[in-house]
Amino acid sequence: GEPLAVIAGPCQAESYDMCVEVGTAMRDRCAELGLGYIFKASFDKANRSSIHTERGPGIEAGLELIAKVGQTLGVPVTTDVHEPHQATAAGEVIDLLQIPAFLCRQTDLLVAAAKTGKAVNVKKGQFLSPAEMKNVVTKLTEAGCTNQMLTERGTFFGYHRLVNDFAGLYDMSQLGWPVCFDVTHSTQNPGGAGTSTGGRPECAPTLARCAVAASVQALFIETHPNPSEAMSDAATMLPVPQVVELLGELAKLHAVVSGS
Amino acid sequence: GEPLAVIAGPCQAESYDMCVEVGTAMRDRCAELGLGYIFKASFDKANRSSIHTERGPGIEAGLELIAKVGQTLGVPVTTDVHEPHQATAAGEVIDLLQIPAFLCRQTDLLVAAAKTGKAVNVKKGQFLSPAEMKNVVTKLTEAGCTNQMLTERGTFFGYHRLVNDFAGLYDMSQLGWPVCFDVTHSTQNPGGAGTSTGGRPECAPTLARCAVAASVQALFIETHPNPSEAMSDAATMLPVPQVVELLGELAKLHAVVSGS
Amino acid sequence: GEPLAVIAGPCQAESYDMCVEVGTAMRDRCAELGLGYIFKASFDKANRSSIHTERGPGIEAGLELIAKVGQTLGVPVTTDVHEPHQATAAGEVIDLLQIPAFLCRQTDLLVAAAKTGKAVNVKKGQFLSPAEMKNVVTKLTEAGCTNQMLTERGTFFGYHRLVNDFAGLYDMSQLGWPVCFDVTHSTQNPGGAGTSTGGRPECAPTLARCAVAASVQALFIETHPNPSEAMSDAATMLPVPQVVELLGELAKLHAVVSGS
Amino acid sequence: GEPLAVIAGPCQAESYDMCVEVGTAMRDRCAELGLGYIFKASFDKANRSSIHTERGPGIEAGLELIAKVGQTLGVPVTTDVHEPHQATAAGEVIDLLQIPAFLCRQTDLLVAAAKTGKAVNVKKGQFLSPAEMKNVVTKLTEAGCTNQMLTERGTFFGYHRLVNDFAGLYDMSQLGWPVCFDVTHSTQNPGGAGTSTGGRPECAPTLARCAVAASVQALFIETHPNPSEAMSDAATMLPVPQVVELLGELAKLHAVVSGS
Repeated sequence: GEPLAVIAGPCQAESYDMCVEVGTAMRDRCAELGLGYIFKASFDKANRSSIHTERGPGIEAGLELIAKVGQTLGVPVTTDVHEPHQATAAGEVIDLLQIPAFLCRQTDLLVAAAKTGKAVNVKKGQFLSPAEMKNVVTKLTEAGCTNQMLTERGTFFGYHRLVNDFAGLYDMSQLGWPVCFDVTHSTQNPGGAGTSTGGRPECAPTLARCAVAASVQALFIETHPNPSEAMSDAATMLPVPQVVELLGELAKLHAVVSGS
Repeated sequence: GEPLAVIAGPCQAESYDMCVEVGTAMRDRCAELGLGYIFKASFDKANRSSIHTERGPGIEAGLELIAKVGQTLGVPVTTDVHEPHQATAAGEVIDLLQIPAFLCRQTDLLVAAAKTGKAVNVKKGQFLSPAEMKNVVTKLTEAGCTNQMLTERGTFFGYHRLVNDFAGLYDMSQLGWPVCFDVTHSTQNPGGAGTSTGGRPECAPTLARCAVAASVQALFIETHPNPSEAMSDAATMLPVPQVVELLGELAKLHAVVSGS
Repeated sequence: GEPLAVIAGPCQAESYDMCVEVGTAMRDRCAELGLGYIFKASFDKANRSSIHTERGPGIEAGLELIAKVGQTLGVPVTTDVHEPHQATAAGEVIDLLQIPAFLCRQTDLLVAAAKTGKAVNVKKGQFLSPAEMKNVVTKLTEAGCTNQMLTERGTFFGYHRLVNDFAGLYDMSQLGWPVCFDVTHSTQNPGGAGTSTGGRPECAPTLARCAVAASVQALFIETHPNPSEAMSDAATMLPVPQVVELLGELAKLHAVVSGS
Repeated sequence: GEPLAVIAGPCQAESYDMCVEVGTAMRDRCAELGLGYIFKASFDKANRSSIHTERGPGIEAGLELIAKVGQTLGVPVTTDVHEPHQATAAGEVIDLLQIPAFLCRQTDLLVAAAKTGKAVNVKKGQFLSPAEMKNVVTKLTEAGCTNQMLTERGTFFGYHRLVNDFAGLYDMSQLGWPVCFDVTHSTQNPGGAGTSTGGRPECAPTLARCAVAASVQALFIETHPNPSEAMSDAATMLPVPQVVELLGELAKLHAVVSGS
């Protein structure tokens, strides 16, 4: 059967040591289960609800930290970029550039990411139909990107709620590129907690199982040694041990679905 | 692991012979796979888009036909009821009474169904949150119903489109009764085809797999020897051979999910 | 310019005296402002969230009460019907039969209402596009109804929230029949208060003004001498004095919009 | 009563002559009706559906052109900015900086706009509840912006459709800043026309009337001498003569609503 990849790591690159701790646990578990693994962390949270919340180490120190974690672990790394100049800088040291959902239609950002020659993973905007991602794919392709991935992270479903449209995921899978399912952001309740985003982490295992059953090629999971103390996305990140256990279940499901 | 039940049959009870043909294929396949089976057909389609479309054999002939199919096949049967007096009549010969989604809040209908002493399966309205089904459960319980099932068949997601909220399904499963997933109606595009309802049957296998991965206790599938000639729901019913094949895949998935 | 009609009254026909009190205030205010007036009350609330909540006087006593209020006030009356036999009975004494939103696609109910020869007002289901009301209009017309009205009372907009689509209202107005705007039910938060429906009555004046600006032919408003003590819809009914004041503002707005 | 302002102009700054032509018509009509007027044009369309479509004159030439139009007409001007450095540049010559809906949560962009000392108009994201705009207002305020406006331009309502929630507009008006209603973008059908956005311009007058009835302080309207030949937003821009006529109607409505 087809392989399944896991993109996992903390929301923010809070420290080198913490990143290595989380990344080691994920890398070893994925190796054990025959799953691919890509380390993920953000150097900057550019659209947080409040101006006062922690945004991360910034681009220079952050990219250096993430790249070093990748070298230490011996795995590819990914991070999200928010402006064209960030894409260019990240393209020097990062393997997979991630375009955030709110920015998935910003032509200059897509073109800058494509021009790095690196793989590009675009999260579908909460305001877009899966079929409209065809326009995103075309923009990237015409700017020279030959390695794309499209990520489902929930669609607007009334105020303070997202929904994952698995029938729509089917449409997105017809666009010719691998599809990733963002487990933890799909459990967000946007604006559900006043100046920060709420969440329903108890639904994460169900949604992850649905995604594997729907034959996605990759899963995206934010995980932290202690989610309640995380500098961002505390409401949705999963504890490392829970992800370790969940991955075992998902690998078995994937084996049945992919016929291996 | 827990058993999985399949509710399957044509949309309308078009004829005794056709019902037996479809029911036999479903019964035999479910037996082979260790799945429970309940035969389903409607005696009346009470809310069709147009007044001119075929509505079925009517209550008296219809209930008799469905009950006879159940006896011939040696399986329990289910049908949908739309007014209190229909519930009472159906309660005489039908094992599982189904309350349609549009009518899931009609107190008199729920009470009449509960008073039959039979099992009652309520489809969640397209306009309701899964948690609001608690009110339905309470109404049934207070009217004496001790055997309930709740069915997900899609929630309004903009004009002409439904979505299945699998995170919401998690909520509905916390209400204390088995949850059923209606595969074929979930693929409807309401009003998407002018005076009739359109559909996306190509998404049915994906949605069915998601539902099994989400640990539902039952699946509801409308199937027909020749969907394009069906008297109703032609846009979403699946051909019998496709359902036979799909059930094999779903049984394997269920075995992994339920740990059996 | 075109006239504007007001359908107003308490949710439930709680008592004859209370109905006459509310109806007198509404009738006199509408006369003063040059607005049409129809008295509204329900004899039964058939789809309440809980089985324990008050449902009203029942069909026989209720229809008699409502008809008597109409005679006393010298105005036409309207009430909602939920099953075909209720439509037939109401057709004897009621001027305008109202089909509830959840039931707007029940063919038998529409046909029974049409066959009474009385005017029929159908509320658009929360799960329907305005254009799909064409199917409802066709069913009524083919069953002989020559006097129809279509009412907007909100469309599903995520769990526990409705939205009024005024661009859609435009579509509904193209179907050839007068359009009514249900001010108070549009402010409901379905299931927003556990076993009962919550509401945002503070938005009612804004929505009513929008509806008049959008050129509706009628407004529907539930009003009560003391909403907090109402037997149903306490969360959304408006106090009588507030409606009296609001109607003055709306009449002025209507005069400008209709060019009179 | 309170004054009403109109922000109007072509989508793109296609040429100086065309901008002056459109702006003159709008300025004169607004003066005649006692309405405020701000000229609007974009120097760059940064998130168009396709990479091949015309994007405008670019930032340097575009800002110069728009500022010159403002001087010629003797009116304030506005344009939209997409990255922090654009905000800074625009702040030199533009009176009112507009933050696009997709970018309304990008902290760096909001801060850069605030730091210019100019007025800032933020369009509510299609994925945000009106109440969440509080976070945007707080970010701007804390970055020193003392002159803000919030614009409603539609909320996601299923694939390919937006809805204007006028009850939500009420919430947004409680945040302490003037509210603007974007008439023409509210009629978009996103992705409704394949590689470009479709629209329903026939609904624009209805929505504009509703907005005035809902007491907004400003209207935003894109208008063009010949919409079908426009370089962008051809599906939704209104012809200049239609806007001239519509403004007359809206001014009358505003006079009644504002009690002047």
